Amino acid sequence: MKKLLNDPENAVADSLAGFALAHADLVQVHHDPTYVTRVGGATTGKVGLVSGGGSGHEPLHCGFVGDGMLDAAVPGAVFTSPTPDGILPALHAADGGAGVLAIVKNYTGDVLNFDLAVELAEAEGARVTAVLVDDDVAVENSTYTAGRRGVAGTLCVEKIAGAAAMQGGDLEDVTRIAQHVVDNVRSMGVALTACTVPHVGGPSFDLPDDQMEIGIGIHGEPGRHRVRVAPADEVTQMLLDPVADDLGLAPGERVLLFVNGMGGTPASELYVVYGRARRLLEQRGVTVARSLVGSYVTSLEMQGASVTVLRLDDELEALWDAPVHTAALRW
Amino acid sequence: MKKLLNDPENAVADSLAGFALAHADLVQVHHDPTYVTRVGGATTGKVGLVSGGGSGHEPLHCGFVGDGMLDAAVPGAVFTSPTPDGILPALHAADGGAGVLAIVKNYTGDVLNFDLAVELAEAEGARVTAVLVDDDVAVENSTYTAGRRGVAGTLCVEKIAGAAAMQGGDLEDVTRIAQHVVDNVRSMGVALTACTVPHVGGPSFDLPDDQMEIGIGIHGEPGRHRVRVAPADEVTQMLLDPVADDLGLAPGERVLLFVNGMGGTPASELYVVYGRARRLLEQRGVTVARSLVGSYVTSLEMQGASVTVLRLDDELEALWDAPVHTAALRW
Repeated sequence: MKKLLNDPENAVADSLAGFALAHADLVQVHHDPTYVTRVGGATTGKVGLVSGGGSGHEPLHCGFVGDGMLDAAVPGAVFTSPTPDGILPALHAADGGAGVLAIVKNYTGDVLNFDLAVELAEAEGARVTAVLVDDDVAVENSTYTAGRRGVAGTLCVEKIAGAAAMQGGDLEDVTRIAQHVVDNVRSMGVALTACTVPHVGGPSFDLPDDQMEIGIGIHGEPGRHRVRVAPADEVTQMLLDPVADDLGLAPGERVLLFVNGMGGTPASELYVVYGRARRLLEQRGVTVARSLVGSYVTSLEMQGASVTVLRLDDELEALWDAPVHTAALRW
Repeated sequence: MKKLLNDPENAVADSLAGFALAHADLVQVHHDPTYVTRVGGATTGKVGLVSGGGSGHEPLHCGFVGDGMLDAAVPGAVFTSPTPDGILPALHAADGGAGVLAIVKNYTGDVLNFDLAVELAEAEGARVTAVLVDDDVAVENSTYTAGRRGVAGTLCVEKIAGAAAMQGGDLEDVTRIAQHVVDNVRSMGVALTACTVPHVGGPSFDLPDDQMEIGIGIHGEPGRHRVRVAPADEVTQMLLDPVADDLGLAPGERVLLFVNGMGGTPASELYVVYGRARRLLEQRGVTVARSLVGSYVTSLEMQGASVTVLRLDDELEALWDAPVHTAALRW
């Protein structure tokens, strides 16, 4: 295993220590239990936003803590759900008196542990709502999931709900908007290579040199099928068509197109995928009104990409455009 | 070869087409010859900034075209210098009447081709200066280089000179500041894996599974030596010490610390390197006043990282902090 790490058992802690130093103006990292909060803590009167999940998907979620996005994030071990003892203090830390929204990716462990932490927080007097992100159209059930998986669309939920909270929405509003994003965002990904979990030390699955996995999960969970290495235009269509079909996009609609790298893919390749996905959407009569291209929801050093489409309306577009200042997303 | 590309011969053109669509608010891509300009063209009365070089290092340079950084960039084929016929129109396009600064990485082809284009532009009446970036302390001469190579420090030159131009500096000022950055920035990198040039189809060099190349160039050129796979803390010291020694950093000085990914390295690992590099600088009595962590000057999908240190003074710090709005760098 070749990685820029020290003791693999401390990979997450080592990385968070550097992250905290590099972004001391934005975030504070708490230990035992581990969670990350905005510098300055909760904003009085603002709905707090908390997310979290297994590590290995950086910059998701800790890289999205800051102004206009998350108030706190809870990183678990690599590809392992965070436990309630980390989630609970994050929920409290994000609580500025207007309630807290938990944004949870639909994996069995995440759902169980967030549910438990939310119950505990409520028992301690907090008002907490939760939305479940399940944007991955590739498979209905998977290794760690009942129902669809939550993948790159999570970024859209966190950005837009974060803006709604920043603009003074109450807990009901912010929760409604987050759910509205969930209802209108779909994703699908492809893997060219596997990735290696540090404390495991070997690739998480086998992918022959001449094959790609269409519909890959962000933990290397199986997708829909394997295909022989194909041109980017063909691969992109295998991702875009199921996403657009599942959304039921109609001519005249406008969308956000987000092409996400899995961690080991050069930006240059993501733009090839973006160009093709955009042309396919335009062929459907759909307008790409907003775009994002980059490696934001990753699987360690996996090579591959995912295509996310969010159906836009005036409200979502304005919230997407609202200022954001985090380690990984800023405008 | 597994890549998200179509015809490898068209890799750069396909990628630029997607880049142009994704960032139509910022850039315009010109074809035959290929170069990229800011939307709206040159700013009247502002010194224009142009850079360029072989492709495969994205987001460098095209991702740095925009407000507060480059006015134009000239991408060559992958790992191949752009030719004067592309550089010349870029120099003219960036010329708002206050002259143009060309920022050139020190590779033989880049130097020759920029020199020729600058001569041609001057013969056509333009005022053009140039600075040569040679921040890589690893080796004195290399495969494509007489003297030191230009690597990730180029980002610092482009950002800071871009801010100086934006703030109304004249050509002499902006050139002086760019040279001041060159004089105070040093870098060194490590490769964990090789990368594959699309039109070649195989890895550009062999790096055994148990070895790392210390002092790697951004085209996979040989570095100082190979070592067995080692912990990140040790590897980081092998990079930071030569950089800091070459700069002659003294206790009490303050620096920008930039940890750059080579394209295939997860953000989580870059933060491990950052944390260690920062501690090593602090042990020298040096203050890390500014930080940047991310994959900005890459080698396709190579796994690895580089450490760049820029000695700061009040002028450089203020120019670094000035607003920038490009596809890849924004604050």
